[in-house]
Amino acid sequence: MGDLTYDHPADLWHAARRGEFQTTTSGLCDGYAQANLVILPKELAFDFLLFCQRNPKPCPVLDVTEPGSPHPPAAGAEADLRTDLPSYRVYRRGRLVDEPTDITSYWRDDLVCFLLGCSFTFERALKENGIPIRHQEERVTVPMYITSMDCVPAGAFWGPMVVSMRPIPHHQVVRAVQVTSRFPAVHGAPVHVGDPSRIGIRDLARPDFGDPVSIGPDEVPVFWACGVTPQAVAMHAQPDLMITHAPGHMFVTTIREETLGVL
Amino acid sequence: MGDLTYDHPADLWHAARRGEFQTTTSGLCDGYAQANLVILPKELAFDFLLFCQRNPKPCPVLDVTEPGSPHPPAAGAEADLRTDLPSYRVYRRGRLVDEPTDITSYWRDDLVCFLLGCSFTFERALKENGIPIRHQEERVTVPMYITSMDCVPAGAFWGPMVVSMRPIPHHQVVRAVQVTSRFPAVHGAPVHVGDPSRIGIRDLARPDFGDPVSIGPDEVPVFWACGVTPQAVAMHAQPDLMITHAPGHMFVTTIREETLGVL
Repeated sequence: MGDLTYDHPADLWHAARRGEFQTTTSGLCDGYAQANLVILPKELAFDFLLFCQRNPKPCPVLDVTEPGSPHPPAAGAEADLRTDLPSYRVYRRGRLVDEPTDITSYWRDDLVCFLLGCSFTFERALKENGIPIRHQEERVTVPMYITSMDCVPAGAFWGPMVVSMRPIPHHQVVRAVQVTSRFPAVHGAPVHVGDPSRIGIRDLARPDFGDPVSIGPDEVPVFWACGVTPQAVAMHAQPDLMITHAPGHMFVTTIREETLGVL
Repeated sequence: MGDLTYDHPADLWHAARRGEFQTTTSGLCDGYAQANLVILPKELAFDFLLFCQRNPKPCPVLDVTEPGSPHPPAAGAEADLRTDLPSYRVYRRGRLVDEPTDITSYWRDDLVCFLLGCSFTFERALKENGIPIRHQEERVTVPMYITSMDCVPAGAFWGPMVVSMRPIPHHQVVRAVQVTSRFPAVHGAPVHVGDPSRIGIRDLARPDFGDPVSIGPDEVPVFWACGVTPQAVAMHAQPDLMITHAPGHMFVTTIREETLGVL
Protein backbone atom coordinates (compact mmCIF):
# COMPACT_ATOMS: atom_id res chain seq x y z
CA MET A 1 0.00 0.00 0.00
CA GLY A 2 1.10 3.56 -0.67
CA ASP A 3 1.16 6.38 1.83
CA LEU A 4 -2.47 6.83 2.84
CA THR A 5 -2.06 10.49 3.73
CA TYR A 6 -1.10 11.52 0.18
CA ASP A 7 0.20 14.95 1.18
CA HIS A 8 1.14 15.86 -2.37
CA PRO A 9 -1.03 15.22 -5.46
CA ALA A 10 1.84 13.37 -7.17
CA ASP A 11 1.80 10.75 -4.37
CA LEU A 12 -1.85 10.09 -5.15
CA TRP A 13 -1.28 10.09 -8.95
CA HIS A 14 1.43 7.46 -8.60
CA ALA A 15 -0.65 5.29 -6.26
CA ALA A 16 -3.59 5.43 -8.71
CA ARG A 17 -1.21 4.69 -11.60
CA ARG A 18 0.02 1.57 -9.78
CA GLY A 19 -3.58 0.52 -9.11
CA GLU A 20 -3.11 1.00 -5.38
CA PHE A 21 -5.66 3.78 -4.92
CA GLN A 22 -9.19 3.32 -6.26
CA THR A 23 -11.53 5.11 -3.80
CA THR A 24 -12.94 8.63 -3.49
CA THR A 25 -10.53 11.57 -3.39
CA SER A 26 -12.77 13.53 -0.98
CA GLY A 27 -10.70 15.06 1.83
CA LEU A 28 -7.32 14.08 0.36
CA CYS A 29 -4.34 16.33 -0.41
CA ASP A 30 -5.42 19.19 1.83
CA GLY A 31 -5.27 22.59 0.13
CA TYR A 32 -5.02 21.34 -3.47
CA ALA A 33 -7.94 21.92 -5.86
CA GLN A 34 -9.69 18.83 -7.20
CA ALA A 35 -11.20 18.74 -10.69
CA ASN A 36 -13.96 17.16 -12.77
CA LEU A 37 -12.64 15.44 -15.91
CA VAL A 38 -14.40 15.39 -19.30
CA ILE A 39 -12.60 13.87 -22.31
CA LEU A 40 -14.04 14.45 -25.79
CA PRO A 41 -12.88 14.08 -29.41
CA LYS A 42 -11.22 17.14 -30.94
CA GLU A 43 -14.07 17.66 -33.43
CA LEU A 44 -16.32 18.58 -30.47
CA ALA A 45 -13.67 20.42 -28.47
CA PHE A 46 -14.33 23.94 -29.76
CA ASP A 47 -18.08 23.72 -29.12
CA PHE A 48 -17.51 22.26 -25.65
CA LEU A 49 -14.94 24.91 -24.70
CA LEU A 50 -17.34 27.55 -26.03
CA PHE A 51 -20.14 26.01 -23.95
CA CYS A 52 -17.90 26.29 -20.88
CA GLN A 53 -16.98 29.90 -21.74
CA ARG A 54 -20.69 30.79 -22.02
CA ASN A 55 -21.64 28.95 -18.82
CA PRO A 56 -18.76 29.63 -16.43
CA LYS A 57 -20.74 28.93 -13.25
CA PRO A 58 -21.54 25.26 -14.00
CA CYS A 59 -18.43 24.81 -16.21
CA PRO A 60 -15.43 26.64 -14.70
CA VAL A 61 -12.42 25.62 -16.82
CA LEU A 62 -9.25 24.94 -14.82
CA ASP A 63 -7.22 23.43 -17.66
CA VAL A 64 -7.49 21.93 -21.16
CA THR A 65 -4.94 19.63 -22.80
CA GLU A 66 -3.60 19.80 -26.34
CA PRO A 67 -5.35 17.25 -28.60
CA GLY A 68 -3.76 13.84 -28.01
CA SER A 69 -1.94 14.87 -24.83
CA PRO A 70 -2.97 13.44 -21.42
CA HIS A 71 -0.79 15.99 -19.56
CA PRO A 72 -2.60 19.07 -18.17
CA PRO A 73 -0.10 21.96 -18.48
CA ALA A 74 -1.55 24.20 -15.73
CA ALA A 75 -3.09 21.65 -13.37
CA GLY A 76 -0.21 19.14 -13.18
CA ALA A 77 2.05 18.73 -16.21
CA GLU A 78 3.71 15.61 -14.72
CA ALA A 79 0.36 13.82 -14.36
CA ASP A 80 -1.09 11.36 -16.87
CA LEU A 81 -4.86 11.77 -17.00
CA ARG A 82 -5.21 8.23 -18.48
CA THR A 83 -3.96 6.52 -15.31
CA ASP A 84 -3.77 9.00 -12.43
CA LEU A 85 -7.42 9.16 -11.39
CA PRO A 86 -8.74 6.34 -9.19
CA SER A 87 -11.73 5.51 -11.43
CA TYR A 88 -13.31 6.50 -14.76
CA ARG A 89 -16.56 6.20 -16.71
CA VAL A 90 -16.55 5.50 -20.45
CA TYR A 91 -19.55 6.44 -22.63
CA ARG A 92 -20.25 5.57 -26.26
CA ARG A 93 -23.00 7.65 -27.94
CA GLY A 94 -24.17 8.68 -24.46
CA ARG A 95 -24.35 5.12 -23.05
CA LEU A 96 -22.16 4.02 -20.12
CA VAL A 97 -20.09 1.07 -21.38
CA ASP A 98 -17.24 0.71 -18.88
CA GLU A 99 -15.98 1.81 -15.45
CA PRO A 100 -12.23 1.16 -15.61
CA THR A 101 -9.44 2.33 -13.31
CA ASP A 102 -7.20 3.08 -16.30
CA ILE A 103 -8.23 4.37 -19.75
CA THR A 104 -5.01 3.73 -21.65
CA SER A 105 -6.76 1.19 -23.89
CA TYR A 106 -9.36 3.81 -24.91
CA TRP A 107 -6.84 6.56 -25.65
CA ARG A 108 -6.79 8.19 -29.11
CA ASP A 109 -4.68 10.94 -30.67
CA ASP A 110 -7.72 13.17 -31.18
CA LEU A 111 -8.87 13.27 -27.55
CA VAL A 112 -8.94 16.52 -25.56
CA CYS A 113 -9.14 16.53 -21.74
CA PHE A 114 -11.09 19.25 -19.92
CA LEU A 115 -10.55 19.80 -16.19
CA LEU A 116 -13.39 21.73 -14.53
CA GLY A 117 -13.47 23.16 -11.02
CA CYS A 118 -15.20 21.20 -8.26
CA SER A 119 -17.20 22.25 -5.22
CA PHE A 120 -14.79 20.66 -2.71
CA THR A 121 -12.80 23.92 -2.75
CA PHE A 122 -15.65 26.28 -1.91
CA GLU A 123 -16.99 23.85 0.70
CA ARG A 124 -13.69 24.06 2.52
CA ALA A 125 -13.91 27.87 2.38
CA LEU A 126 -17.46 27.76 3.81
CA LYS A 127 -16.35 25.49 6.65
CA GLU A 128 -13.39 27.72 7.48
CA ASN A 129 -15.94 30.53 7.84
CA GLY A 130 -17.97 28.48 10.31
CA ILE A 131 -20.75 27.72 7.82
CA PRO A 132 -22.08 24.12 8.14
CA ILE A 133 -22.05 21.66 5.22
CA ARG A 134 -25.13 19.57 5.89
CA HIS A 135 -24.45 16.63 3.53
CA GLN A 136 -21.02 16.22 5.12
CA GLU A 137 -22.56 16.28 8.60
CA GLU A 138 -25.08 13.65 7.49
CA ARG A 139 -22.41 11.69 5.54
CA VAL A 140 -24.36 11.56 2.28
CA THR A 141 -23.84 12.85 -1.28
CA VAL A 142 -24.83 16.50 -1.83
CA PRO A 143 -28.40 16.74 -3.22
CA MET A 144 -28.53 17.86 -6.86
CA TYR A 145 -31.51 19.08 -8.91
CA ILE A 146 -32.24 19.64 -12.59
CA THR A 147 -33.55 23.23 -12.85
CA SER A 148 -35.75 25.16 -15.27
CA MET A 149 -32.75 27.43 -16.04
CA ASP A 150 -31.34 26.64 -19.47
CA CYS A 151 -27.61 26.89 -20.07
CA VAL A 152 -26.55 29.09 -22.98
CA PRO A 153 -26.14 26.57 -25.84
CA ALA A 154 -23.04 26.16 -28.04
CA GLY A 155 -23.14 23.93 -31.11
CA ALA A 156 -24.19 20.40 -30.11
CA PHE A 157 -24.14 21.25 -26.41
CA TRP A 158 -27.28 22.44 -24.62
CA GLY A 159 -29.46 21.55 -21.68
CA PRO A 160 -30.67 22.67 -18.25
CA MET A 161 -28.40 23.77 -15.43
CA VAL A 162 -27.99 21.25 -12.63
CA VAL A 163 -27.53 22.75 -9.15
CA SER A 164 -26.41 21.46 -5.77
CA MET A 165 -28.20 22.64 -2.60
CA ARG A 166 -26.82 23.41 0.84
CA PRO A 167 -29.07 24.61 3.69
CA ILE A 168 -27.51 27.75 5.21
CA PRO A 169 -28.60 29.43 8.49
CA HIS A 170 -30.33 32.78 7.81
CA HIS A 171 -27.65 34.80 9.54
CA GLN A 172 -24.89 33.21 7.42
CA VAL A 173 -26.45 33.53 3.94
CA VAL A 174 -24.72 36.82 3.13
CA ARG A 175 -21.36 35.46 4.30
CA ALA A 176 -21.90 32.30 2.23
CA VAL A 177 -22.44 34.46 -0.88
CA GLN A 178 -19.32 36.50 -0.11
CA VAL A 179 -17.10 33.49 0.59
CA THR A 180 -18.05 31.55 -2.53
CA SER A 181 -17.96 34.67 -4.76
CA ARG A 182 -14.20 34.69 -4.15
CA PHE A 183 -13.89 31.38 -6.04
CA PRO A 184 -15.35 31.74 -9.56
CA ALA A 185 -13.03 28.93 -10.75
CA VAL A 186 -14.93 26.42 -8.59
CA HIS A 187 -18.56 27.42 -9.38
CA GLY A 188 -18.41 30.73 -7.50
CA ALA A 189 -21.40 32.55 -6.06
CA PRO A 190 -24.79 30.83 -5.67
CA VAL A 191 -27.18 30.94 -8.63
CA HIS A 192 -30.24 31.14 -6.35
CA VAL A 193 -31.15 31.76 -2.70
CA GLY A 194 -34.46 30.63 -1.23
CA ASP A 195 -37.69 29.39 -2.85
CA PRO A 196 -36.77 26.34 -4.98
CA SER A 197 -39.93 26.63 -7.12
CA ARG A 198 -38.48 29.82 -8.67
CA ILE A 199 -35.89 27.70 -10.48
CA GLY A 200 -38.17 24.80 -11.31
CA ILE A 201 -37.46 22.52 -8.34
CA ARG A 202 -40.67 20.90 -7.06
CA ASP A 203 -39.54 18.92 -4.04
CA LEU A 204 -36.26 19.35 -2.18
CA ALA A 205 -36.83 15.94 -0.58
CA ARG A 206 -36.50 14.27 -3.98
CA PRO A 207 -33.21 15.32 -5.62
CA ASP A 208 -32.46 14.19 -9.18
CA PHE A 209 -28.97 13.06 -8.12
CA GLY A 210 -27.40 12.51 -4.69
CA ASP A 211 -29.29 12.29 -1.42
CA PRO A 212 -31.82 14.50 0.39
CA VAL A 213 -30.60 16.38 3.48
CA SER A 214 -32.50 17.89 6.39
CA ILE A 215 -33.25 21.63 6.43
CA GLY A 216 -33.70 23.37 9.80
CA PRO A 217 -36.43 25.96 10.51
CA ASP A 218 -33.84 28.76 10.59
CA GLU A 219 -32.17 27.71 7.37
CA VAL A 220 -32.48 28.83 3.76
CA PRO A 221 -31.82 26.51 0.81
CA VAL A 222 -28.96 27.97 -1.24
CA PHE A 223 -28.22 26.68 -4.73
CA TRP A 224 -24.89 26.55 -6.56
CA ALA A 225 -24.23 25.58 -10.19
CA CYS A 226 -22.99 21.99 -10.25
CA GLY A 227 -20.28 20.17 -12.18
CA VAL A 228 -22.79 17.49 -13.15
CA THR A 229 -24.14 20.01 -15.68
CA PRO A 230 -21.34 19.71 -18.28
CA GLN A 231 -21.33 15.91 -18.00
CA ALA A 232 -25.10 15.74 -18.53
CA VAL A 233 -24.87 18.18 -21.43
CA ALA A 234 -21.96 16.32 -23.04
CA MET A 235 -23.71 12.96 -22.67
CA HIS A 236 -26.76 14.47 -24.35
CA ALA A 237 -24.67 15.36 -27.42
CA GLN A 238 -23.96 11.61 -27.84
CA PRO A 239 -20.30 11.79 -28.91
CA ASP A 240 -18.88 8.54 -30.28
CA LEU A 241 -16.57 8.49 -27.23
CA MET A 242 -16.68 10.42 -23.95
CA ILE A 243 -14.70 9.62 -20.80
CA THR A 244 -15.22 11.22 -17.39
CA HIS A 245 -14.04 10.66 -13.81
CA ALA A 246 -16.28 8.37 -11.76
CA PRO A 247 -18.38 10.42 -9.28
CA GLY A 248 -16.25 11.51 -6.31
CA HIS A 249 -13.09 10.07 -7.91
CA MET A 250 -11.63 13.37 -9.04
CA PHE A 251 -8.32 14.48 -10.50
CA VAL A 252 -6.27 16.14 -7.77
CA THR A 253 -4.43 19.11 -9.27
CA THR A 254 -1.26 20.85 -8.13
CA ILE A 255 -3.21 24.14 -8.02
CA ARG A 256 -3.31 25.49 -4.46
CA GLU A 257 -6.94 26.32 -3.69
CA GLU A 258 -6.16 29.75 -2.28
CA THR A 259 -4.56 30.80 -5.58
CA LEU A 260 -8.02 30.49 -7.19
CA GLY A 261 -9.39 33.22 -4.90
CA VAL A 262 -10.17 36.62 -6.43
CA LEU A 263 -9.58 39.69 -4.28
CA MET B 1 -25.66 62.59 -40.02
CA GLY B 2 -26.79 60.34 -37.20
CA ASP B 3 -27.14 61.34 -33.58
CA LEU B 4 -23.60 62.19 -32.50
CA THR B 5 -24.22 61.35 -28.84
CA TYR B 6 -25.04 57.67 -29.52
CA ASP B 7 -26.51 56.99 -26.09
CA HIS B 8 -27.27 53.37 -26.89
CA PRO B 9 -24.90 50.99 -28.69
CA ALA B 10 -27.59 50.17 -31.28
CA ASP B 11 -27.60 53.84 -32.40
CA LEU B 12 -23.90 53.58 -33.10
CA TRP B 13 -24.22 50.15 -34.82
CA HIS B 14 -26.86 51.53 -37.19
CA ALA B 15 -24.85 54.65 -37.98
CA ALA B 16 -21.78 52.51 -38.73
CA ARG B 17 -23.94 50.17 -40.83
CA ARG B 18 -25.15 53.12 -42.90
CA GLY B 19 -21.55 54.34 -43.32
CA GLU B 20 -22.27 57.47 -41.28
CA PHE B 21 -19.88 56.72 -38.43
CA GLN B 22 -16.25 55.85 -39.21
CA THR B 23 -14.14 57.34 -36.39
CA THR B 24 -12.89 56.13 -33.00
CA THR B 25 -15.41 54.83 -30.48
CA SER B 26 -13.40 56.21 -27.53
CA GLY B 27 -15.69 57.96 -25.04
CA LEU B 28 -18.94 56.95 -26.77
CA CYS B 29 -21.96 55.13 -25.26
CA ASP B 30 -21.11 55.93 -21.66
CA GLY B 31 -21.28 52.89 -19.37
CA TYR B 32 -21.26 50.21 -22.09
CA ALA B 33 -18.22 47.93 -22.44
CA GLN B 34 -16.27 48.16 -25.70
CA ALA B 35 -14.55 45.13 -27.22
CA ASN B 36 -11.63 44.10 -29.38
CA LEU B 37 -12.67 41.98 -32.41
CA VAL B 38 -10.70 39.04 -33.83
CA ILE B 39 -12.25 36.95 -36.62
CA LEU B 40 -10.62 33.62 -37.55
CA PRO B 41 -11.53 30.50 -39.57
CA LYS B 42 -13.22 27.71 -37.59
CA GLU B 43 -10.24 25.36 -38.05
CA LEU B 44 -8.21 27.69 -35.79
CA ALA B 45 -11.06 28.56 -33.41
CA PHE B 46 -10.45 25.88 -30.79
CA ASP B 47 -6.76 26.68 -30.48
CA PHE B 48 -7.47 30.41 -30.29
CA LEU B 49 -10.20 29.99 -27.66
CA LEU B 50 -7.82 27.72 -25.73
CA PHE B 51 -5.10 30.38 -26.02
CA CYS B 52 -7.52 32.92 -24.54
CA GLN B 53 -8.53 30.51 -21.76
CA ARG B 54 -4.86 30.01 -20.86
CA ASN B 55 -4.03 33.72 -21.04
CA PRO B 56 -7.07 35.46 -19.56
CA LYS B 57 -5.27 38.69 -18.65
CA PRO B 58 -4.27 39.68 -22.21
CA CYS B 59 -7.22 37.78 -23.77
CA PRO B 60 -10.38 38.21 -21.66
CA VAL B 61 -13.21 36.65 -23.70
CA LEU B 62 -16.48 38.62 -23.62
CA ASP B 63 -18.28 36.66 -26.35
CA VAL B 64 -17.73 34.20 -29.22
CA THR B 65 -20.09 33.66 -32.15
CA GLU B 66 -21.23 30.37 -33.64
CA PRO B 67 -19.23 29.55 -36.81
CA GLY B 68 -20.74 31.52 -39.71
CA SER B 69 -22.77 33.83 -37.49
CA PRO B 70 -21.91 37.55 -37.20
CA HIS B 71 -24.29 38.01 -34.23
CA PRO B 72 -22.69 37.96 -30.75
CA PRO B 73 -25.27 36.31 -28.46
CA ALA B 74 -24.09 37.83 -25.16
CA ALA B 75 -22.60 41.14 -26.29
CA GLY B 76 -25.37 42.31 -28.64
CA ALA B 77 -27.44 39.70 -30.48
CA GLU B 78 -29.05 42.34 -32.73
CA ALA B 79 -25.68 43.59 -33.96
CA ASP B 80 -23.99 42.49 -37.17
CA LEU B 81 -20.22 42.32 -36.64
CA ARG B 82 -19.66 42.59 -40.43
CA THR B 83 -21.03 46.13 -40.64
CA ASP B 84 -21.49 47.62 -37.18
CA LEU B 85 -17.91 48.61 -36.35
CA PRO B 86 -16.63 51.87 -37.82
CA SER B 87 -13.49 50.37 -39.38
CA TYR B 88 -11.73 47.00 -39.85
CA ARG B 89 -8.37 45.52 -40.79
CA VAL B 90 -8.12 42.46 -43.07
CA TYR B 91 -5.03 40.23 -43.01
CA ARG B 92 -4.08 37.37 -45.34
CA ARG B 93 -1.33 35.07 -44.04
CA GLY B 94 -0.40 37.78 -41.52
CA ARG B 95 -0.17 40.61 -44.09
CA LEU B 96 -2.49 43.65 -43.91
CA VAL B 97 -4.38 43.74 -47.23
CA ASP B 98 -7.36 46.03 -46.62
CA GLU B 99 -8.86 48.57 -44.20
CA PRO B 100 -12.57 48.56 -45.10
CA THR B 101 -15.53 50.01 -43.20
CA ASP B 102 -17.60 46.89 -43.98
CA ILE B 103 -16.41 43.27 -44.27
CA THR B 104 -19.49 41.73 -45.88
CA SER B 105 -17.51 40.92 -49.04
CA TYR B 106 -14.95 38.95 -46.98
CA TRP B 107 -17.52 36.97 -45.01
CA ARG B 108 -17.43 33.14 -45.07
CA ASP B 109 -19.53 30.45 -43.41
CA ASP B 110 -16.55 29.12 -41.45
CA LEU B 111 -15.63 32.37 -39.70
CA VAL B 112 -15.80 32.71 -35.90
CA CYS B 113 -15.85 36.14 -34.19
CA PHE B 114 -14.11 36.63 -30.84
CA LEU B 115 -14.90 39.71 -28.74
CA LEU B 116 -12.25 40.45 -26.11
CA GLY B 117 -12.45 42.96 -23.29
CA CYS B 118 -10.80 46.36 -23.71
CA SER B 119 -9.03 48.70 -21.30
CA PHE B 120 -11.53 51.56 -21.77
CA THR B 121 -13.64 50.01 -18.98
CA PHE B 122 -10.93 49.82 -16.34
CA GLU B 123 -9.66 53.28 -17.27
CA ARG B 124 -13.07 54.69 -16.48
CA ALA B 125 -13.00 52.88 -13.11
CA LEU B 126 -9.54 54.34 -12.38
CA LYS B 127 -10.72 57.86 -13.21
CA GLU B 128 -13.82 57.50 -11.04
CA ASN B 129 -11.41 56.67 -8.22
CA GLY B 130 -9.45 59.86 -8.83
CA ILE B 131 -6.49 58.10 -10.44
CA PRO B 132 -5.05 60.01 -13.42
CA ILE B 133 -4.80 58.50 -16.92
CA ARG B 134 -1.68 60.15 -18.29
CA HIS B 135 -2.11 59.30 -22.00
CA GLN B 136 -5.61 60.79 -21.89
CA GLU B 137 -4.29 63.93 -20.20
CA GLU B 138 -1.60 64.21 -22.90
CA ARG B 139 -4.05 63.25 -25.68
CA VAL B 140 -1.91 60.44 -27.12
CA THR B 141 -2.26 56.68 -27.56
CA VAL B 142 -1.39 54.60 -24.48
CA PRO B 143 2.26 53.38 -24.64
CA MET B 144 2.55 49.61 -25.25
CA TYR B 145 5.59 47.36 -24.88
CA ILE B 146 6.54 43.84 -25.95
CA THR B 147 7.72 42.06 -22.78
CA SER B 148 9.97 39.11 -21.99
CA MET B 149 6.95 37.32 -20.48
CA ASP B 150 5.78 34.53 -22.79
CA CYS B 151 2.09 33.75 -23.06
CA VAL B 152 1.12 30.12 -22.44
CA PRO B 153 1.00 28.66 -25.99
CA ALA B 154 -1.96 26.76 -27.51
CA GLY B 155 -1.59 25.00 -30.87
CA ALA B 156 -0.47 27.50 -33.50
CA PHE B 157 -0.77 30.44 -31.11
CA TRP B 158 2.20 31.63 -29.08
CA GLY B 159 4.22 34.76 -28.44
CA PRO B 160 5.18 37.38 -25.85
CA MET B 161 2.70 39.33 -23.76
CA VAL B 162 2.23 42.94 -24.79
CA VAL B 163 1.50 45.36 -21.95
CA SER B 164 0.23 48.92 -21.67
CA MET B 165 1.78 51.29 -19.12
CA ARG B 166 0.16 53.98 -16.98
CA PRO B 167 2.19 56.09 -14.52
CA ILE B 168 0.41 56.00 -11.14
CA PRO B 169 1.22 58.24 -8.12
CA HIS B 170 2.86 56.21 -5.30
CA HIS B 171 -0.01 56.75 -2.89
CA GLN B 172 -2.56 55.45 -5.43
CA VAL B 173 -0.80 52.25 -6.58
CA VAL B 174 -2.61 49.99 -4.11
CA ARG B 175 -5.97 51.52 -5.01
CA ALA B 176 -5.19 51.09 -8.74
CA VAL B 177 -4.54 47.37 -8.14
CA GLN B 178 -7.79 47.04 -6.16
CA VAL B 179 -9.93 48.90 -8.68
CA THR B 180 -8.71 47.01 -11.75
CA SER B 181 -8.78 43.64 -9.93
CA ARG B 182 -12.57 44.03 -9.89
CA PHE B 183 -12.63 43.80 -13.70
CA PRO B 184 -10.97 40.54 -14.85
CA ALA B 185 -13.11 40.64 -18.03
CA VAL B 186 -11.24 43.76 -19.20
CA HIS B 187 -7.62 42.75 -18.44
CA GLY B 188 -8.02 42.93 -14.64
CA ALA B 189 -5.18 43.54 -12.20
CA PRO B 190 -1.76 44.79 -13.36
CA VAL B 191 0.81 42.18 -14.41
CA HIS B 192 3.71 44.24 -13.04
CA VAL B 193 4.37 47.26 -10.81
CA GLY B 194 7.63 49.22 -10.96
CA ASP B 195 10.99 48.43 -12.60
CA PRO B 196 10.32 47.87 -16.32
CA SER B 197 13.59 45.93 -16.80
CA ARG B 198 12.12 43.08 -14.73
CA ILE B 199 9.72 42.29 -17.59
CA GLY B 200 12.17 42.92 -20.42
CA ILE B 201 11.37 46.56 -21.18
CA ARG B 202 14.55 48.55 -21.88
CA ASP B 203 13.32 52.08 -22.37
CA LEU B 204 9.91 53.45 -21.37
CA ALA B 205 10.52 56.41 -23.68
CA ARG B 206 10.47 54.08 -26.70
CA PRO B 207 7.25 52.05 -26.69
CA ASP B 208 6.77 49.32 -29.32
CA PHE B 209 3.27 50.65 -30.07
CA GLY B 210 1.52 53.90 -29.15
CA ASP B 211 3.19 57.00 -27.78
CA PRO B 212 5.52 57.73 -24.85
CA VAL B 213 4.04 59.61 -21.88
CA SER B 214 5.70 61.63 -19.13
CA ILE B 215 6.30 60.03 -15.72
CA GLY B 216 6.46 62.29 -12.65
CA PRO B 217 9.06 61.89 -9.84
CA ASP B 218 6.35 60.62 -7.45
CA GLU B 219 4.92 58.14 -9.93
CA VAL B 220 5.42 54.40 -10.49
CA PRO B 221 5.03 52.77 -13.92
CA VAL B 222 2.24 50.18 -13.68
CA PHE B 223 1.77 47.59 -16.44
CA TRP B 224 -1.45 45.90 -17.56
CA ALA B 225 -1.83 43.05 -20.08
CA CYS B 226 -2.94 44.54 -23.38
CA GLY B 227 -5.46 43.52 -26.05
CA VAL B 228 -2.79 43.93 -28.72
CA THR B 229 -1.36 40.60 -27.49
CA PRO B 230 -3.99 38.30 -29.08
CA GLN B 231 -3.88 40.23 -32.36
CA ALA B 232 -0.10 39.97 -32.51
CA VAL B 233 -0.23 36.28 -31.63
CA ALA B 234 -2.97 35.55 -34.18
CA MET B 235 -1.11 37.44 -36.91
CA HIS B 236 1.98 35.39 -36.13
CA ALA B 237 0.04 32.15 -36.81
CA GLN B 238 -0.50 33.43 -40.39
CA PRO B 239 -4.09 32.25 -40.92
CA ASP B 240 -5.30 32.43 -44.51
CA LEU B 241 -7.80 35.08 -43.36
CA MET B 242 -7.96 37.17 -40.18
CA ILE B 243 -10.09 40.25 -39.63
CA THR B 244 -9.84 42.63 -36.66
CA HIS B 245 -11.22 46.02 -35.68
CA ALA B 246 -9.04 48.98 -36.68
CA PRO B 247 -7.18 50.37 -33.64
CA GLY B 248 -9.52 52.47 -31.48
CA HIS B 249 -12.51 51.53 -33.65
CA MET B 250 -14.04 49.02 -31.27
CA PHE B 251 -17.28 47.09 -31.14
CA VAL B 252 -19.56 48.72 -28.57
CA THR B 253 -21.42 45.97 -26.69
CA THR B 254 -24.72 46.12 -24.81
CA ILE B 255 -22.90 44.83 -21.70
CA ARG B 256 -23.07 47.42 -18.91
CA GLU B 257 -19.53 47.90 -17.62
CA GLU B 258 -20.51 47.59 -13.97
CA THR B 259 -21.95 44.10 -14.58
CA LEU B 260 -18.38 42.94 -15.36
CA GLY B 261 -17.26 43.83 -11.82
CA VAL B 262 -16.52 40.98 -9.41
CA LEU B 263 -17.35 41.51 -5.75
